[in-house]
Amino acid sequence: MTINRISRVVLTPVAFADPPLLNVVGVHQPWALRAILELHTDSGLVGLGETYADETHLARLEAVADVLPGHDPYDTHGLYRLVADVLGKETGGAGASFGGMLDVDSAVDTVYSPFEVACLDLVAREADRPVSDLLGGAVRDRVPFSGYLFYKWAGHPGSTDNGPDEWGEALNPDQIVAQAKRMVDGWGFGSLKLKGGVFPPEEECAAIEALRTAFPGLPLRLDPNGAWTPETSIRVAERLAGVVEYLEDPTPGIDAMARVAASTDVPLATNMCVIAFEHLAPAVAADAVQIVLSDHHLWGGLRRSALLAGITETFGMGLSMHSNSHLGVSLAAMVHLAAATPNLTYACDTHYPWKTCSGMAQDVVRPGVLDFTDGSVAVPTGPGLGVELDRDLLGELHERYLSCGVRRREDTVYMRSVVPDFTPNTARW
Amino acid sequence: MTINRISRVVLTPVAFADPPLLNVVGVHQPWALRAILELHTDSGLVGLGETYADETHLARLEAVADVLPGHDPYDTHGLYRLVADVLGKETGGAGASFGGMLDVDSAVDTVYSPFEVACLDLVAREADRPVSDLLGGAVRDRVPFSGYLFYKWAGHPGSTDNGPDEWGEALNPDQIVAQAKRMVDGWGFGSLKLKGGVFPPEEECAAIEALRTAFPGLPLRLDPNGAWTPETSIRVAERLAGVVEYLEDPTPGIDAMARVAASTDVPLATNMCVIAFEHLAPAVAADAVQIVLSDHHLWGGLRRSALLAGITETFGMGLSMHSNSHLGVSLAAMVHLAAATPNLTYACDTHYPWKTCSGMAQDVVRPGVLDFTDGSVAVPTGPGLGVELDRDLLGELHERYLSCGVRRREDTVYMRSVVPDFTPNTARW
Ligand SMILES: [Mg+2]
Ligand SMILES: [Mg+2]
Repeated sequence: MTINRISRVVLTPVAFADPPLLNVVGVHQPWALRAILELHTDSGLVGLGETYADETHLARLEAVADVLPGHDPYDTHGLYRLVADVLGKETGGAGASFGGMLDVDSAVDTVYSPFEVACLDLVAREADRPVSDLLGGAVRDRVPFSGYLFYKWAGHPGSTDNGPDEWGEALNPDQIVAQAKRMVDGWGFGSLKLKGGVFPPEEECAAIEALRTAFPGLPLRLDPNGAWTPETSIRVAERLAGVVEYLEDPTPGIDAMARVAASTDVPLATNMCVIAFEHLAPAVAADAVQIVLSDHHLWGGLRRSALLAGITETFGMGLSMHSNSHLGVSLAAMVHLAAATPNLTYACDTHYPWKTCSGMAQDVVRPGVLDFTDGSVAVPTGPGLGVELDRDLLGELHERYLSCGVRRREDTVYMRSVVPDFTPNTARW
Repeated sequence: MTINRISRVVLTPVAFADPPLLNVVGVHQPWALRAILELHTDSGLVGLGETYADETHLARLEAVADVLPGHDPYDTHGLYRLVADVLGKETGGAGASFGGMLDVDSAVDTVYSPFEVACLDLVAREADRPVSDLLGGAVRDRVPFSGYLFYKWAGHPGSTDNGPDEWGEALNPDQIVAQAKRMVDGWGFGSLKLKGGVFPPEEECAAIEALRTAFPGLPLRLDPNGAWTPETSIRVAERLAGVVEYLEDPTPGIDAMARVAASTDVPLATNMCVIAFEHLAPAVAADAVQIVLSDHHLWGGLRRSALLAGITETFGMGLSMHSNSHLGVSLAAMVHLAAATPNLTYACDTHYPWKTCSGMAQDVVRPGVLDFTDGSVAVPTGPGLGVELDRDLLGELHERYLSCGVRRREDTVYMRSVVPDFTPNTARW
């Protein structure tokens, strides 16, 4: 038995231009950060992973990278123990900040994730098989995504160095419908999600109703990131019953979600109150959510996300997929995971189209593999994740990381540079 | 990408001599049945599986075998759909009878299991890796098993054609202790399980107490297969608190188990009221069991057993492993699964030593890989499951299947041939 062990680990923080997308905690900074992970083997294979690049998280990734050479990529259980050992007591706190939106206390799963993905990429490349085959095989050739609509400013205030923003302003129902038309025309999305929590709920309901009128057949979702009280959530659910396929995190916390769930037939989804395995038992006991949004970056990679999928199926919950701003390595991993998850029956979220905000190079993978057709991405059929790094692009986006000055995601801090008295809106309405 | 597709499927029912082991529904017949599955590929690889051979189950296996050629062994999701399609509406009822002890309604998982194991064996052989590596890697080099004690007759009544029974009679505490000494001396077991439900609970408690005296340090378990009422179970739990590591299925059904669990600190384990994924949600809601006994034959193979393991960990339950009478292919699969399951922290059950009841050949795999040392089996390190069929032994055990006359497991029917008024004892005491 020949073991192709990991011989070298390369971690490259990169930055790409991000539009001023609004949410409950503030606004996206001009630059989104990601870390690209390469695991090299003696035999010349390279496995890829992608994750957050907030500086605390990056330091944790580097600590794991330091001790990884010699590791067998098949041994993901050993990798998990290794990550836990390296992090030691330092597992609390948000290594990746999510703009202040999530309180992530599963640092082991979050740090482990890109290493696991890169290990599976290596194993699959060695076997000359797509990663989806390591997860039991693709049950669909194409993975459908949902068009992800945001309230946004016309451009970043004062900043012009990250290119022209082709998307324009979106601050009312008409502008949201216009944004949706552009999304649907350009990518063919067959469902739409509106990121809410920005304006009073009545305005956001009006935007959803305008989308319903403009796109009669399309499933719609609204996600205010916990901006509402349970009472407001119940009122919105009554208004949007039969209009949305689900409401995502209307109110913060398992208990409040359970109160809303008990009062409406509108399914409630979450990527805020159930974001780690330890949240599942209390959520199930409280009957708090009907749909969990999976995210392999948070849930410990692809195999642990498959475990989450099996748990939601076993306990009668639906499954959808969450997205943060990301690049092509993450998109490829999401597509393989979604393809090999039989009960992932909702279109996945993705921020991917928002990379077109700028005329600059905005990815690190060679183009041509991850194109959207009819709102779907074909499952890559090449070995591993099926995507390859473009070294020139990687260098260019790393240079931007070095020069852009952003070192962590801070939506609230950035918002306050424009609106000094801004307060994050959790359960404000 | 070259796909080594399945080209030929061979299913061989075999029989091996089984001693007259007593349980709640009767007594083991002189011959235990198993089906050995071979999946051949064009490239000359052979993947192995093992399962029950009750005739209804065998017919279902053969129906799947008929349509399997051309299938890609990596595509286990497709295999699952294929099994579900082949079984169609015929998914109810006990295809494998378990002697009448279990009402198995998850026929798809049970039929799928040996095919999945054989597919993983093929995938692992192709990758020149042990099957445990496909499950994330072995977290232990050796898998500990529990010595499995049975009340038994001295020999089969009237039947002498399956060899001398070296184990002798065990119908009282002294004889159980003698049996345990033989088990511990011969195999080195570090824990012991007594199959109960045969005599009134006081006698079985006395046997456990005699074992405690004879083996002061060894963890002990008692499994009456639901022979007791909740009240009796609570009384036994009071008597054996601090003596047993767990009580297994003292009383039948999730509701009754929950009543017992609410009244004792002795952990309750089950392989009767939670034997399929659909039983997990009600068992968790009722807080009915503290430990689930996994069994890849029932739970849909190795990956779905890994899912079960993740579920028990997520919902705060312990995990142990169940056994029926089995041969070396199953033992190899159990060892790989147990090795790659971090939270399988109890010694596994196995009937394997009972094969030594006879001087005859009693297995189908080449000897030397699966030896017990200090009660443990070393995880095979060869490719795939790490065991190979011995064609002569396979032929010999198949001949015995053809000549033995047993076509399904019927513990109660066999018991009634000796004790005409025998009644299965569920919740009798
Ligand atoms: Mg969300
Ligand atoms: Mg049992």
